[in-house]
Amino acid sequence: MTIDYPARRARLAAALPAHEVPALLVTSPVNVRYLTGLVSSNAAVLVRADGSALLATDNRYIDMTRALDVTAVEAPDVAGRLAEPGAGIEAAAMSVATFRRLNAGLNAGLNAGLNAGGGEGGGLVPLGPLVEELRAVKDEAELELIRTACALTDQAFADVLPLIAPGLTERAVARLLDNRMTELGADKPAFDTIVAAGENGAIPHHAPTDRELRAGDLVTMDFGARYHGYHADMTRTVCLGEPADWQRDLYDLVRRAQRAGRHALTPGAEAKDVDAAARGLIAAAGHGDHFRHGLGHGVGLEIHEDPFLGPSRTGRLEDRVPITVEPGIYLPERGGVRIEDTLVTREGGPELFTKTTKELLVL
Amino acid sequence: MTIDYPARRARLAAALPAHEVPALLVTSPVNVRYLTGLVSSNAAVLVRADGSALLATDNRYIDMTRALDVTAVEAPDVAGRLAEPGAGIEAAAMSVATFRRLNAGLNAGLNAGLNAGGGEGGGLVPLGPLVEELRAVKDEAELELIRTACALTDQAFADVLPLIAPGLTERAVARLLDNRMTELGADKPAFDTIVAAGENGAIPHHAPTDRELRAGDLVTMDFGARYHGYHADMTRTVCLGEPADWQRDLYDLVRRAQRAGRHALTPGAEAKDVDAAARGLIAAAGHGDHFRHGLGHGVGLEIHEDPFLGPSRTGRLEDRVPITVEPGIYLPERGGVRIEDTLVTREGGPELFTKTTKELLVL
Repeated sequence: MTIDYPARRARLAAALPAHEVPALLVTSPVNVRYLTGLVSSNAAVLVRADGSALLATDNRYIDMTRALDVTAVEAPDVAGRLAEPGAGIEAAAMSVATFRRLNAGLNAGLNAGLNAGGGEGGGLVPLGPLVEELRAVKDEAELELIRTACALTDQAFADVLPLIAPGLTERAVARLLDNRMTELGADKPAFDTIVAAGENGAIPHHAPTDRELRAGDLVTMDFGARYHGYHADMTRTVCLGEPADWQRDLYDLVRRAQRAGRHALTPGAEAKDVDAAARGLIAAAGHGDHFRHGLGHGVGLEIHEDPFLGPSRTGRLEDRVPITVEPGIYLPERGGVRIEDTLVTREGGPELFTKTTKELLVL
Repeated sequence: MTIDYPARRARLAAALPAHEVPALLVTSPVNVRYLTGLVSSNAAVLVRADGSALLATDNRYIDMTRALDVTAVEAPDVAGRLAEPGAGIEAAAMSVATFRRLNAGLNAGLNAGLNAGGGEGGGLVPLGPLVEELRAVKDEAELELIRTACALTDQAFADVLPLIAPGLTERAVARLLDNRMTELGADKPAFDTIVAAGENGAIPHHAPTDRELRAGDLVTMDFGARYHGYHADMTRTVCLGEPADWQRDLYDLVRRAQRAGRHALTPGAEAKDVDAAARGLIAAAGHGDHFRHGLGHGVGLEIHEDPFLGPSRTGRLEDRVPITVEPGIYLPERGGVRIEDTLVTREGGPELFTKTTKELLVL
């Protein structure tokens, strides 16, 4: 499946008149990639309301632009090359320093008699996440890449599972997962893999240490593959040896909450209602204070992107939105359980990309 | 060796009066880490001119702050919690969106009668890279971590070298290097490993592909380990089979240029003069147009940080500045050579952290 970049730029162009700008200067690297296909740490693209576009990158990347369907110019200062009076900019992606530098350059130009566009005195116009909003709904080519990223992640977990045993360190388990994902064809891990054993499982974002796994530990693994730039995200908690009653109860509660969250994932659902479907079960069991992060987040060219699921998140889900559902319960100094799948919203019910069982695995 | 965080904050505090701000709101995650020891994707620290400091992070990281020598508060909106009228902000790290949001919040406060500090109408004051300037000169504890990161990188190269042979893909070689670095104790690769074989060597920032290595290829490998947050950076170009004359000549030229660059690395040297020492040799041989990037960059908590070596870079090197020296020559459609070490400036001559031979390795 090929990606239709001009169609993406046309969708962005169609959104510009509502923001009263003649063009948007896109400087977020992942948004430049989305709109042009160029993977570069130093590139920008100016998309005009008529759908035309001009890409700028430096000499390290200019050769790569020849294969693209957009006109490109070489410039070390990519944003400076494309900035023009009245153009919108991505306020969340552009630094204050760059904004001030570009505006100073434009004002100098205005003083020299250049024709001014709209905007704040002819300067750049800070705008919200226009491209991010387009990116939330994926096309089928993107979904196929995320599906593959999730399949690689599942397979890596299946391959590493037999190797997980007391005596291995958290770091060693993370390394096994990371290596296996790249061996299977991942670009690289989608993010820093989390492996949290025993009491460390009480820390949602625990970084792997040299703590050894021990019999009786719950072990939480949160990891994923990146594939052609697209991300997978998955968490499983396993038990080393026969679980104690509290461990089994905790696991069952999280599993039921995760299922409730998945079942609430429908196009049209409100983000906070999906969160509430899972959180309500956990709160009703008295663990509301032990689940202090959002229920999930969109995935795509970024590991965390719109939309987000949480108690104070607004907006409704659309169709074809890949998203995680990942409730967790964290008991200070005892441990924790988190279960996370990546799914995509579909009319008629979500498609589950993460296929690994959610039964409690006893190793 | 332990790190003296209060001393770092005191050095920053001492720099504030010259910028006429009562405090600096530090929001760059790596700068927050440098000043407090907290590793978090959502944290900020306000450092006052009297050396006192207040750290803010969210509930995922707040427990980690208990071990630190700085007062911490829990807040989901870390910058909003700490922003105060007239405080400086890091203009290169803060987005336009965040700046406008914080300033709007402060103005509301001012209207309600809060006491105003200095700055632009009581708003936040965009400042330059104050913390980055402090970070350029490393203390011995930091140098020891970078030395170790470089030793892991050298060792990984030595271990992988016997495995490199025709038939392996660029991606497979990159995977071998990445895996070996993490097995040896790296946090993770310091950046996306570059493996460029044959004609791909003409692309300075080539991403590894499924192209197989072949007899007669020059193969450039640019990689490094991250260790306790600190980065190593190394490049070697090897030849598969006996090199052709043009390959040997190209290699010798780059090696001489790299040596000239290293020898120019002394405290007090101007950044552009160090660059010129290497670039002059390459230009004199008629390859000036084939070396189009800077000669090197500082390394530390970031893989690319101040200072930078290049024809238009200003400023002089100080003592104890870890930096790369990495000239390259790239011949379109034929291939390229790059040789890169990480070193640290020292009175009496640089200390070489990258120990791998710079003789042309013929595999």
